[in-house]
Amino acid sequence: MLSMMRTELSIVESQPYNAETSIRALCRNDVTPNDAFYVRNHFQIPIIDSKHWKLKVTGAVRTSQTFSLKEIKSMPAKKLLVTTECAGNGRSRMQPLPPSTPWRDHAVATAEWTGTQLRNILSKTKPDEKATEVLFVGADSGVEDGRALPFERSLPLSEALHRDVILAYGMNSHPLPRIHGFPVRAIVPRWYGMASVKWLNEIRVLSKPFKGYFQKKRYIYGASRNMANSYQDNHPVTLVRVKSIILDPPEGTVLQCGQRCIVSGLAWSGSGRIVKVEFRTHNMSWQAARLSSDLGPYTWRRWSIGWKPKNCGRYILMSRATDDGGLSQPEQPVWNRYGYGYNSVLTRSVLVEEVNSEAGK
Amino acid sequence: MLSMMRTELSIVESQPYNAETSIRALCRNDVTPNDAFYVRNHFQIPIIDSKHWKLKVTGAVRTSQTFSLKEIKSMPAKKLLVTTECAGNGRSRMQPLPPSTPWRDHAVATAEWTGTQLRNILSKTKPDEKATEVLFVGADSGVEDGRALPFERSLPLSEALHRDVILAYGMNSHPLPRIHGFPVRAIVPRWYGMASVKWLNEIRVLSKPFKGYFQKKRYIYGASRNMANSYQDNHPVTLVRVKSIILDPPEGTVLQCGQRCIVSGLAWSGSGRIVKVEFRTHNMSWQAARLSSDLGPYTWRRWSIGWKPKNCGRYILMSRATDDGGLSQPEQPVWNRYGYGYNSVLTRSVLVEEVNSEAGK
Repeated sequence: MLSMMRTELSIVESQPYNAETSIRALCRNDVTPNDAFYVRNHFQIPIIDSKHWKLKVTGAVRTSQTFSLKEIKSMPAKKLLVTTECAGNGRSRMQPLPPSTPWRDHAVATAEWTGTQLRNILSKTKPDEKATEVLFVGADSGVEDGRALPFERSLPLSEALHRDVILAYGMNSHPLPRIHGFPVRAIVPRWYGMASVKWLNEIRVLSKPFKGYFQKKRYIYGASRNMANSYQDNHPVTLVRVKSIILDPPEGTVLQCGQRCIVSGLAWSGSGRIVKVEFRTHNMSWQAARLSSDLGPYTWRRWSIGWKPKNCGRYILMSRATDDGGLSQPEQPVWNRYGYGYNSVLTRSVLVEEVNSEAGK
Repeated sequence: MLSMMRTELSIVESQPYNAETSIRALCRNDVTPNDAFYVRNHFQIPIIDSKHWKLKVTGAVRTSQTFSLKEIKSMPAKKLLVTTECAGNGRSRMQPLPPSTPWRDHAVATAEWTGTQLRNILSKTKPDEKATEVLFVGADSGVEDGRALPFERSLPLSEALHRDVILAYGMNSHPLPRIHGFPVRAIVPRWYGMASVKWLNEIRVLSKPFKGYFQKKRYIYGASRNMANSYQDNHPVTLVRVKSIILDPPEGTVLQCGQRCIVSGLAWSGSGRIVKVEFRTHNMSWQAARLSSDLGPYTWRRWSIGWKPKNCGRYILMSRATDDGGLSQPEQPVWNRYGYGYNSVLTRSVLVEEVNSEAGK
């Protein structure tokens, strides 16, 4: 199992364990296998005995209740295909480099999740009239800012009641793996991964805005005062920004002059469906790529385009996605203090050589 | 000769021919061999018959004169060790990507040039009292903005009279190679490469500011109005900005956890001597690197530092140079319309694995 994970994941940090989906898995699979799905932890992975585990639902509700895994599984089940991206994906491209995990571009993956709607749980406990937010409390905990705390994040009540916010116990027809939140995690489509809290211990309905560490001190687009290109200050990180990546050809590939190749990749957005992906090189203008079939409202979309380099030399390749809300990737990165939401146009460098060139041999 | 060049240079464009110094040559040589020295052309390389070639000196001078190669070689000779960097070096890292040649980081090299001081030539022709600039006119020409023109650039007279501005006919104890400006080129230490005009045909002393294409439309820090982080508009590109690069370990290298390695590279500046290079990873603070011996006032300086990664995972490596004028590399890139003077802190990504790990096998 470990060796398999090591071939399918690119380790970014060992303590706590954080790893990106491999390029191979991204190229091969519309639905990412469980052992290739990127892993994002803030703390040690908690080991939970599901026999004794109960999900507490407390706070601004008419009846506080607990639910066993068996009870949750007995509720109406829903399967959802969802692309999830870490809010810090792309952080290592930011300049100045923000602190925290230096993700490159592949903290993104797609799985089919099985669970029950959060609204099923909430309808049993009945949020009272003062309820405004729903707080997810994970079993993972550690020290931040000198204080011990669990990973916990709130959602506005209106979002929490969305029909496609689920409490998931299955991942790609398997029980939820320990590393991905066993026994039960939240899945919040369209939002960056931090909203999909793993190892759920408690759901607390709140009547005031939550002000915890991961709500107000992290997962905010915090800007430094001396950064001229910052455009927002302490806005919360919410929906996934529209983005595309080139998967093939890989960085540094040597191509042959005059020979046609296929450039392909993935595109996704939390604010709508992908309707356009464009491609260009440094010396040509944007051209529309072909989109593969749409897998669903919450998933990435594969794209490809034929390209024939006419001259030898270095080429810079770029892709740009647009969603049906009209949002496109910016060409200039927008820096923020903790390095979230990086979605500007990425560049890929390849080398084009004469056919039968002996260079580099 | 061609095959040798191909192994020592990284081709960036074939038409016109532009190529970067190879990493291997940068690692091995304090003085770059001629066939490994980066090549920057705007147009076709002119082929000049040195027997019939004459350098014309005209304009705001008391006596216009021509000089044969033999006459120039008979003047007092000077040898100068100079690091030259293309003003567009690093352009391909800028976002949005500016037009023109997509240089990565290695359009930089050092050679020992042999020539005579420009002031020797000027003292014979005697600039008159209205003289303010010296225009170098190259034999290379082509079409820009719909008009045929040579590559031509001016220097303020005060700069042109500097004792270390030379007309070079020798490069590393060889005659100046055709590709580097045969028979005679300017060498202007401290300035970006565009000032060191190749294939000199004419030196014209001017009494008014030169307004040619390569003076006023290119080699300017032109900013777009809608770019928030632009800080200057149409200022001329002049001195080389302080900069450092990491040469070893290369991008994507796999290192072993707990084993010490040496991180090394080069640093240079047109505004002073390099007095400090610092190194850090994404999760540590700046530490002073060791500087190799100073090769001279106009050359790069090699630096190195020992580093022992303690945990597995991805590490982002960074270096930052400071010169004796107190200038340091910025951590945030400053975009400009044509992509000149990129000198912000560069990042290098490496992977650290367990000793004897089987990952990646």
